[in-house]
Amino acid sequence: MNKNSSNIMALTPNTSNKRETICIFGTGDFGRALGHKMIQSGYPVVFGSRSTQKSSLIPKDAELLSHAEAAQKAAIIIIAIQRQHYNFLTSLAEILHGKVLVDVSNNLKINQYPESNAEYLAQLVPGAKVVKAFNTVSAWALQSGTLDASRQVFVCGDDMEAKQRVMDIVRALGLTPLDQGTLLAAQEIENYPLQLFPMWRFPIVLSLCLATFFFFYCLIRDVIYSYVYDNQDFSFFITISIPNRVCPILALILLALVYLPGVLAAIIQLYRGTKYRRFPDWLDKWMLCRKQLGLVALAFASLHVLYTLVIPIRSFVRWRISSQIISQALNNKTEPLNNTYAWLSDSYLALGILGFFLFVLLGITSLPSVSNNVNWREFRFVQSKLGYLTLILCTAHTLVYGGNRFLSPSSYRWYLPNAYMLSLIVPCIVLVVKFVLILPCLDKPLTRIRQGWERNPQYSEQSNYIINKSAV
Amino acid sequence: MNKNSSNIMALTPNTSNKRETICIFGTGDFGRALGHKMIQSGYPVVFGSRSTQKSSLIPKDAELLSHAEAAQKAAIIIIAIQRQHYNFLTSLAEILHGKVLVDVSNNLKINQYPESNAEYLAQLVPGAKVVKAFNTVSAWALQSGTLDASRQVFVCGDDMEAKQRVMDIVRALGLTPLDQGTLLAAQEIENYPLQLFPMWRFPIVLSLCLATFFFFYCLIRDVIYSYVYDNQDFSFFITISIPNRVCPILALILLALVYLPGVLAAIIQLYRGTKYRRFPDWLDKWMLCRKQLGLVALAFASLHVLYTLVIPIRSFVRWRISSQIISQALNNKTEPLNNTYAWLSDSYLALGILGFFLFVLLGITSLPSVSNNVNWREFRFVQSKLGYLTLILCTAHTLVYGGNRFLSPSSYRWYLPNAYMLSLIVPCIVLVVKFVLILPCLDKPLTRIRQGWERNPQYSEQSNYIINKSAV
Amino acid sequence: MNKNSSNIMALTPNTSNKRETICIFGTGDFGRALGHKMIQSGYPVVFGSRSTQKSSLIPKDAELLSHAEAAQKAAIIIIAIQRQHYNFLTSLAEILHGKVLVDVSNNLKINQYPESNAEYLAQLVPGAKVVKAFNTVSAWALQSGTLDASRQVFVCGDDMEAKQRVMDIVRALGLTPLDQGTLLAAQEIENYPLQLFPMWRFPIVLSLCLATFFFFYCLIRDVIYSYVYDNQDFSFFITISIPNRVCPILALILLALVYLPGVLAAIIQLYRGTKYRRFPDWLDKWMLCRKQLGLVALAFASLHVLYTLVIPIRSFVRWRISSQIISQALNNKTEPLNNTYAWLSDSYLALGILGFFLFVLLGITSLPSVSNNVNWREFRFVQSKLGYLTLILCTAHTLVYGGNRFLSPSSYRWYLPNAYMLSLIVPCIVLVVKFVLILPCLDKPLTRIRQGWERNPQYSEQSNYIINKSAV
Repeated sequence: MNKNSSNIMALTPNTSNKRETICIFGTGDFGRALGHKMIQSGYPVVFGSRSTQKSSLIPKDAELLSHAEAAQKAAIIIIAIQRQHYNFLTSLAEILHGKVLVDVSNNLKINQYPESNAEYLAQLVPGAKVVKAFNTVSAWALQSGTLDASRQVFVCGDDMEAKQRVMDIVRALGLTPLDQGTLLAAQEIENYPLQLFPMWRFPIVLSLCLATFFFFYCLIRDVIYSYVYDNQDFSFFITISIPNRVCPILALILLALVYLPGVLAAIIQLYRGTKYRRFPDWLDKWMLCRKQLGLVALAFASLHVLYTLVIPIRSFVRWRISSQIISQALNNKTEPLNNTYAWLSDSYLALGILGFFLFVLLGITSLPSVSNNVNWREFRFVQSKLGYLTLILCTAHTLVYGGNRFLSPSSYRWYLPNAYMLSLIVPCIVLVVKFVLILPCLDKPLTRIRQGWERNPQYSEQSNYIINKSAV
Repeated sequence: MNKNSSNIMALTPNTSNKRETICIFGTGDFGRALGHKMIQSGYPVVFGSRSTQKSSLIPKDAELLSHAEAAQKAAIIIIAIQRQHYNFLTSLAEILHGKVLVDVSNNLKINQYPESNAEYLAQLVPGAKVVKAFNTVSAWALQSGTLDASRQVFVCGDDMEAKQRVMDIVRALGLTPLDQGTLLAAQEIENYPLQLFPMWRFPIVLSLCLATFFFFYCLIRDVIYSYVYDNQDFSFFITISIPNRVCPILALILLALVYLPGVLAAIIQLYRGTKYRRFPDWLDKWMLCRKQLGLVALAFASLHVLYTLVIPIRSFVRWRISSQIISQALNNKTEPLNNTYAWLSDSYLALGILGFFLFVLLGITSLPSVSNNVNWREFRFVQSKLGYLTLILCTAHTLVYGGNRFLSPSSYRWYLPNAYMLSLIVPCIVLVVKFVLILPCLDKPLTRIRQGWERNPQYSEQSNYIINKSAV
Repeated sequence: MNKNSSNIMALTPNTSNKRETICIFGTGDFGRALGHKMIQSGYPVVFGSRSTQKSSLIPKDAELLSHAEAAQKAAIIIIAIQRQHYNFLTSLAEILHGKVLVDVSNNLKINQYPESNAEYLAQLVPGAKVVKAFNTVSAWALQSGTLDASRQVFVCGDDMEAKQRVMDIVRALGLTPLDQGTLLAAQEIENYPLQLFPMWRFPIVLSLCLATFFFFYCLIRDVIYSYVYDNQDFSFFITISIPNRVCPILALILLALVYLPGVLAAIIQLYRGTKYRRFPDWLDKWMLCRKQLGLVALAFASLHVLYTLVIPIRSFVRWRISSQIISQALNNKTEPLNNTYAWLSDSYLALGILGFFLFVLLGITSLPSVSNNVNWREFRFVQSKLGYLTLILCTAHTLVYGGNRFLSPSSYRWYLPNAYMLSLIVPCIVLVVKFVLILPCLDKPLTRIRQGWERNPQYSEQSNYIINKSAV
């Protein structure tokens, strides 16, 4: 059910007592928060604890018993204790036989133990049906009812029926259970809440480094040079003018870096004559974060668009234009329209608009809910055809922006070329190599390799090569 | 399957007769629409009705029998009649024994009856397996095939196998079944289609009130004042200039109101020394609609951006700039660049751009498909770290916009301060209190409270306080 | 699990050998790619092939046996061979009895065979439990690990337990299984990967035709006319000025075409007096691609916004404005503010901004993850109320833009009216007819018809008309 309705339900607790009793082992923060929420949702809750003296911490409507007594009162037992304390459960093995044990534990770091906590629990109490669940929900969120974030609860377990019962409880709490299969998935589920944007780290670090470099590069060329030679103070350029140079440069370079690994992979496959050998690790990792690279590039492109569109509102720009007009008026000059310049200016704007438009389209299709609704053929069409068209348009936008300034000596200050020239290196390489790769003499063997053909099967371990087209 | 393919299937009915016969009780609009759709999907359909004289309303390929005869022909019976008429089903109890009864009914208002219609049906015919389904789909949509909206059909029921069979039928009709657990979920499923954006009501009403107030406030200051004192008619300001004052004010206030309840909650928890006591109701409700408040704020911020970017195209602005330039040219004056003003103008634009950019990022992460793909740690990082950064940037944007006008007496017309000054009150309070709360002397106890620690357990019902760190 | 974590898992293969052995029939590209991936995920894999001489193509860790031997080693057999070669499986019927056969095959065109490959397989080996899966995943993606696109694997089959086991394997490979019901869904699943945006074709072809027409129309009026009569070269208009005329025209026409079929459907229903007769085929198809039409219109509207916002940066515009100012300054003229013109200019900008804002809102609510979170009542409210408001605002934007130019003879060059006048025809028709339809005298019978009432039941096959309000 959607967030709205569940939120409403959270305020109008369903106190029907038709639900089965749940036992919770452990009266720590998470156990109590879960107990609170379950009582709110109409479940009778009994806590199992070492000390049976009821503390104020236990929700009022819950019972507090010894572990053994509590376990006997319910068919589903939530183990809200830490892994180090699991051992005492072996002494309860008889009582726990046939019961559903729900492991809700989390670790402090990724892959902390050789086996997952849930698998460890299943080994300790072999007669019980262990289900992993609830570890991705925070106690604070359960307590405060502010489940704005993901309501997904990953559930896994070897016993189908036990899993179904736990999933029913998850739903009753207003959360969305997601079946993740057998208990072998527990390790991944336990690692999940510990991650902090793992795939985003490389793109973000890379773009921060590039941004710092280009920021100081432009600072030297545009602010310090003017200050040294013309004694003009353009320090306010660091708020808009320089970011508006850095952003498009980063957007273009990062966009090219999205397509570079694909081109490298094609070269490696052509050279090796097979697709069945693994790429070097760095290439594998690079390919896996292409989507994130592209989205960071899109972020810089969007900033570039915003910075560009406010240009006419900037007080500096207004002052510059009006002083130009006034000096022309005072000199009684009227300039005719420079047609070449009008063409250049309009074309580079038009190329930029179209490039940005396609870039946003690519970004939208990478939204999970959109990419889930397209099949492979459609996804490849969008990401490769539209992607390269975007790269071509953005590169052309930068080239036309340069116009006839490439060779003018005034573009070189302190022998430093304009920053946008540096940004053109990677995209031009990618486009040229890609153009070479789609020549029929290279495209044909590449297509065959990608369909499973191998050039030199005799070099591998076995020498018998069977042409196996019908694949039987 | 995705929408496209299902839509195509809707046009090429699969008339294979391998599917099992479905019985539909009731020949009202919804029963007939469902019957039409099922026949299209290849199910033999038999209608059960009081009158067995076949009316033109019944789809041609369907049979029409008495209730008892129809029920005998199928294992799955869809009860497409109103709850008031359910009683007659008790007389068929024997025939319905062991059959799957699908309750598709809806009510006229939320929580109309003490128990859900499906639970009522299960009480009337205890021998049958009752499944709730199809109530969220409209007859009109089924009939016209235009299922552009949600294809989700919520299904719940106590019998797993019966539920599976109904879910297979749902899929065969090109819809997406969503298992909602046991029949206890039926009440919520029946309430669902009656809602009309319940969580959006408060944010929208609040923003409409604020918008009206600030609109007239600006109208008085900017239009009426000029008309009274300078006899100038700036009535056209109500189309762009005044909305462009109101929008950023509302965006900033609403964004601050997103973070105010969190700050209040922290103060309450610090004061009470526990997190296990419920917040006052108004705070609970406020916290639940923070996402909606934030999105309304984003909408106003987007309008502000659009209104600002069209400024240089406005005919009034062009006229004002050109008259300034002409008067300067006629007076032979050339003004030097005002460096301070260039700094102020560029910084407030840059702060606004960065604030808006982060705001849009926050908006994107609140899309359901995106927030489902981040874990709690990531979600809290984005919503709290990035969220506060956005608030700081937007507040700074407004402060720098004010610049040195805060103290200038010309900003006060009829003793009314500039509207943007009013908009700074709430965000500044939130930021100052938040800053106080992250001082170690307050942050440490707060963190402990949120991890389950309680300051004054002796004041609660039970006085035995067990330090329970290992949580066993 | 989310994409990030799964991608990580792809790099750290889980080599635990607790998983059950999987047999793969066929050593073609897809069989080998699947085998590689399964070995990576910890499954022992045995290939069944005609030739048991191990080729280099088989993954090192896999066994290669004859079909019969391989089948005996595993309970789950993946049939990675082409449909034409299925016949030989009949000879293995005894060995395959009770086993789970997974059909992964695809066809070359939509509906190539009368029955789906999976159903054909089930007929050939009646004793086996056939499950359709994996056909929507590409071998290349499995091989390279770059599963950026949809990770969804559609699964269907008649045996619940067999389906569950296959879904567990799908999850173990880091993919997301989606239960599609019984084997009858196989046909649709096999057609799915062959589609290339079927619902987008008509909207895109239509908009390309319209765009071409309007492009040349504007080219004649704006560039060629000026060249012929004034001998002025405005050829650079084709980069921005003309696209910025074509885009809004297309956006408005396509938006009106989204609402035209609904209006036509209402007229047809009123005329026929029933909703239970099918619409003509063209209308059905039109209604099914309304969402796509609307999104294409939104794309053109977005381009129009970008093209408009860069206007003040264009070198041509800057030149034109500065020459106007200079000539005014040289003639010592200062024009007073034209209040009417300020009103017109600001209103058409404000209408455009509000229209575009609502249009973007409509676009966001059509994102799958958003539309899944609203119920029918909410969806209809957004799409019909907000939709018509958008159409009204955009039409008004165009009308006010025209202003008093409608009747001025200078708007007609070579007897061709301004292009925007042509764009107003369809939206005005839609709005007028819609206005007529919501008059009570037409709205009431229409509402009754849509609730299932029929005017002339005596004209249908059966003449007995039963008033059936309580629908029992």
